[in-house]
Amino acid sequence: MIELRGVYPYLISPLDDSGLVRTEVLGNLIEHLLDCGVHGLAPLGSTGEFAYLDAGQRLEVVRATVQHSAGRVPVIAGVAATTISDAVRQVQAYKQAGADGILAILESYFPVNDTGVEAYFTAIADEAGDMPVVLYTNPQFQRSDLSLPVIARLSRHPAIRAIKDASTNTGRLLSIIQKTQGKLAVFAASSHVPAAVMLLGGVGWMAGPACLVPRQSVMLYTLAMQGRWSEAMALQQQLWPLNQLFARYTPAATVKAGLVLQGFDVGLPLAPQPSVDEPGIELIRNALTRISECRNFSE
Amino acid sequence: MIELRGVYPYLISPLDDSGLVRTEVLGNLIEHLLDCGVHGLAPLGSTGEFAYLDAGQRLEVVRATVQHSAGRVPVIAGVAATTISDAVRQVQAYKQAGADGILAILESYFPVNDTGVEAYFTAIADEAGDMPVVLYTNPQFQRSDLSLPVIARLSRHPAIRAIKDASTNTGRLLSIIQKTQGKLAVFAASSHVPAAVMLLGGVGWMAGPACLVPRQSVMLYTLAMQGRWSEAMALQQQLWPLNQLFARYTPAATVKAGLVLQGFDVGLPLAPQPSVDEPGIELIRNALTRISECRNFSE
Amino acid sequence: MIELRGVYPYLISPLDDSGLVRTEVLGNLIEHLLDCGVHGLAPLGSTGEFAYLDAGQRLEVVRATVQHSAGRVPVIAGVAATTISDAVRQVQAYKQAGADGILAILESYFPVNDTGVEAYFTAIADEAGDMPVVLYTNPQFQRSDLSLPVIARLSRHPAIRAIKDASTNTGRLLSIIQKTQGKLAVFAASSHVPAAVMLLGGVGWMAGPACLVPRQSVMLYTLAMQGRWSEAMALQQQLWPLNQLFARYTPAATVKAGLVLQGFDVGLPLAPQPSVDEPGIELIRNALTRISECRNFSE
Amino acid sequence: MIELRGVYPYLISPLDDSGLVRTEVLGNLIEHLLDCGVHGLAPLGSTGEFAYLDAGQRLEVVRATVQHSAGRVPVIAGVAATTISDAVRQVQAYKQAGADGILAILESYFPVNDTGVEAYFTAIADEAGDMPVVLYTNPQFQRSDLSLPVIARLSRHPAIRAIKDASTNTGRLLSIIQKTQGKLAVFAASSHVPAAVMLLGGVGWMAGPACLVPRQSVMLYTLAMQGRWSEAMALQQQLWPLNQLFARYTPAATVKAGLVLQGFDVGLPLAPQPSVDEPGIELIRNALTRISECRNFSE
Repeated sequence: MIELRGVYPYLISPLDDSGLVRTEVLGNLIEHLLDCGVHGLAPLGSTGEFAYLDAGQRLEVVRATVQHSAGRVPVIAGVAATTISDAVRQVQAYKQAGADGILAILESYFPVNDTGVEAYFTAIADEAGDMPVVLYTNPQFQRSDLSLPVIARLSRHPAIRAIKDASTNTGRLLSIIQKTQGKLAVFAASSHVPAAVMLLGGVGWMAGPACLVPRQSVMLYTLAMQGRWSEAMALQQQLWPLNQLFARYTPAATVKAGLVLQGFDVGLPLAPQPSVDEPGIELIRNALTRISECRNFSE
Repeated sequence: MIELRGVYPYLISPLDDSGLVRTEVLGNLIEHLLDCGVHGLAPLGSTGEFAYLDAGQRLEVVRATVQHSAGRVPVIAGVAATTISDAVRQVQAYKQAGADGILAILESYFPVNDTGVEAYFTAIADEAGDMPVVLYTNPQFQRSDLSLPVIARLSRHPAIRAIKDASTNTGRLLSIIQKTQGKLAVFAASSHVPAAVMLLGGVGWMAGPACLVPRQSVMLYTLAMQGRWSEAMALQQQLWPLNQLFARYTPAATVKAGLVLQGFDVGLPLAPQPSVDEPGIELIRNALTRISECRNFSE
Repeated sequence: MIELRGVYPYLISPLDDSGLVRTEVLGNLIEHLLDCGVHGLAPLGSTGEFAYLDAGQRLEVVRATVQHSAGRVPVIAGVAATTISDAVRQVQAYKQAGADGILAILESYFPVNDTGVEAYFTAIADEAGDMPVVLYTNPQFQRSDLSLPVIARLSRHPAIRAIKDASTNTGRLLSIIQKTQGKLAVFAASSHVPAAVMLLGGVGWMAGPACLVPRQSVMLYTLAMQGRWSEAMALQQQLWPLNQLFARYTPAATVKAGLVLQGFDVGLPLAPQPSVDEPGIELIRNALTRISECRNFSE
Repeated sequence: MIELRGVYPYLISPLDDSGLVRTEVLGNLIEHLLDCGVHGLAPLGSTGEFAYLDAGQRLEVVRATVQHSAGRVPVIAGVAATTISDAVRQVQAYKQAGADGILAILESYFPVNDTGVEAYFTAIADEAGDMPVVLYTNPQFQRSDLSLPVIARLSRHPAIRAIKDASTNTGRLLSIIQKTQGKLAVFAASSHVPAAVMLLGGVGWMAGPACLVPRQSVMLYTLAMQGRWSEAMALQQQLWPLNQLFARYTPAATVKAGLVLQGFDVGLPLAPQPSVDEPGIELIRNALTRISECRNFSE
């Protein structure tokens, strides 16, 4: 199985006006991210607007990501559904399209109890087979959440190998690490401070901002893995203002706006989602400029 | 244009194990509801599990409803999407399938601001043309809500004719009535007391429980419209325990369980939604039995 | 025991700059309210800023209310505490000061479980003896809430005679009425529509706005009790805009601002509570003017 | 001015059945904590049940703490009120009683706007004079919160020197550190992982659990200050299970139960607060036993 650790940017999903995936733009972005040393790619996360794409658009995003990355790094594709049957169909489709792993997301309308939550993620993991599964929970935007007991039970499934918890509660990550005793790798989200999560035992960063600052994200990961915590925190201090903009605007809007500033023609988030306004674009521009002027950290 | 008032049961969506719509079962239910005198039919509301069906299943539910009701009462079909483009496509499909009106629902993942909310519902109303549009907001299950100023602005669109607010805040309904000054008909949801909503000026009941007690719902509406408030309240007292079960289980699970008890083979809510457990089924059976033994109210 | 029904204005607490209760101003307000026919007086509710007064100020407000009303109507004094011992002391003090009943409020910092909630209200009721107790729950401002099972159990205590539920969930009031089967009188709060609550079986209105429109509140109650629902609703429509201002500003700030406009020198809410700003005062003035120009309803 | 850094246990408030402060028990606890090397004492925090004590009990707790610590470490006394005038009186009383600094807490019933929040804390700081003020915000239990802009403005007041943010959002602490640029020292709460907060630039731990594991808390602080992050995290891993119990029970109940196990006769939290049940006491006993068996870390 592939190793799940390091920096996995959540890819945006660039569409043209007729709703077709702009695979060339996506390819350029992927080439750039791989040049910067990212360890994997994660299409169809929150930043990838999975909640706004239909089945065909989702599959096309996965296909294009697999094709452009061409096996150089693992591709972890987001599966998000309200029903088990739809989730299983997505796993099959993305496996066939060449994905290396699954980021599993439970959408819901009515509340789901723990039995239902567990059944959903287990069905995905059963279908995934030898593809590793990353549990994804985001209590800010999703109407369900993964309780600690359910996470502990799911961690015993051989295919379930990691978790990305996008709450802002960093202590919960330590609780997950302790509760699953090495069975579940923990990734930081953009709402956590990655350096702190790696100090707690986290294995990397799986988030949208890594699309905008891939080189620095990789350096932060490297410094943390080498135990150079003071240097890691100095770099982290420089990166944090970008994460704060994610809390002000939405992840998809912020990353798309930042990528446009960097020359990638990725367009806007799908309507009626709000785009970043002019003052916001200035804030993103300033944050990116200051980060690019960071002093370098040698490996 | 059709008149929007009276009792509109939210239809459930019966599926077989392979995910096909059981149109015969749906047809039997519709025949029964029309026999009981309901004033319209509303497929693809919350109770209709719109959030759990794919595009094909949704369209099939609308088609079957139109075919079986055969023009005897209006069919108001639920349109629910996260993007404007998907919503517009649904309006076109349901219009072509013969729907008489649209129940408009905004799904979201990231927060939407008022501008986006207004753009979404306006696009649906523009596409609806001469079909009336009912705004639907359910802050309990949806991640967006309609503010009073947005409701007031939307009420000026010629196609937007009614609102169903499924909050539990009944005072808000009076505020909507006052703010829109006759431009927007207000329907009670199962979380409100219909008799009280009609006293405030509401025009009827659009909700799942009306599937289970259609005759009594129509009687309640009639008594209220005739200003026979004491009798309306006496009947309302008898119906209320059923609504309370909706707050304990989910609308889809409760209505499906009740219909099975009444002999309609509608199946269970789609997994991983929880079904009503055995004690809950007993509670529903008891509530329905007591209601059927109600003393009759003559018109 | 006194009868608990009708219109009970929540009295404001007027203080001078040194924190002394302005008993003369309070006396004038009470005289005016009694002239308008209110059925009782409720000092130390939310509107009475109980949460901002120390033990001495609270007692002084109760004493002044008892003295000025001089037995003409019942005085229901608010008891609010985080500990049982403090609550019991307040009951003793207000009883000795001549209060006729207790409005019981549970303040909390840490969450309280149902056992604790029940113990708190039971201790108050035990101490109240032959004074009737009105349960008060306000999930909007208080950190605890009364569950339906706890309300049902408390309703069996001989001293616990009524409830004022200040949620916005009107259906919950009907559930309480059904669950307590005549043992608990239900009062409307300013967040509910009083006419609707009385249709459901409510016995009156216990709220801050009744300080500002006492005569119309009494008329509304009378019309409802006579079953003249259309007239009641016509009057209710005229009164509702005032309630909406309560949701925009706070009850204490709104009622104090309105009373100043009516010539009662009650001052501002205690700092750092926000006062109503100039545009808000204009809105209150307009609402009061329109209400005073209402057509009269004859009894 | 005193230096604000290190480990400040939130003291519990031991009362006898008549409500008197058991000063001898408190004295024994303080002696033990000072033996273990804590850097300061914080009476009347959440753990100190400030919300359940009257003015006399609060003053007595401060007096006893000052007397028993006898100048060996700073005493930071909690001031908590709903009104500015009450808060100012408390500052005066605790200053006169010999406190070295103030932990400032805003209680509220109605919502307070940013202007009011700022006025409240500024009034405390003005009155504090040369006593340093620690801002305290706990969105879990308090009905107000400190926004980042308000924190930034308050950080410019010469007396306001530190903040303890008891949210679970660790990223917010980094935002505060960046926004206040060295003007505000940041303490970890029990809902954060102290080692992570110190990596971000935090200056220590101000929390209830430090009453139970003072020696280990001081060691954790020392390791972090020396940059020995791997050792700090190894120790942190051992301490974390205790913090998790705080989220399950309340801080006051957990610390009081733990201290009783350690031989301090501190009693139970004041009724109607729930005490820790038997299974919970077992969990606390096990957590404490495992921690006391930790391998030692040499300085």
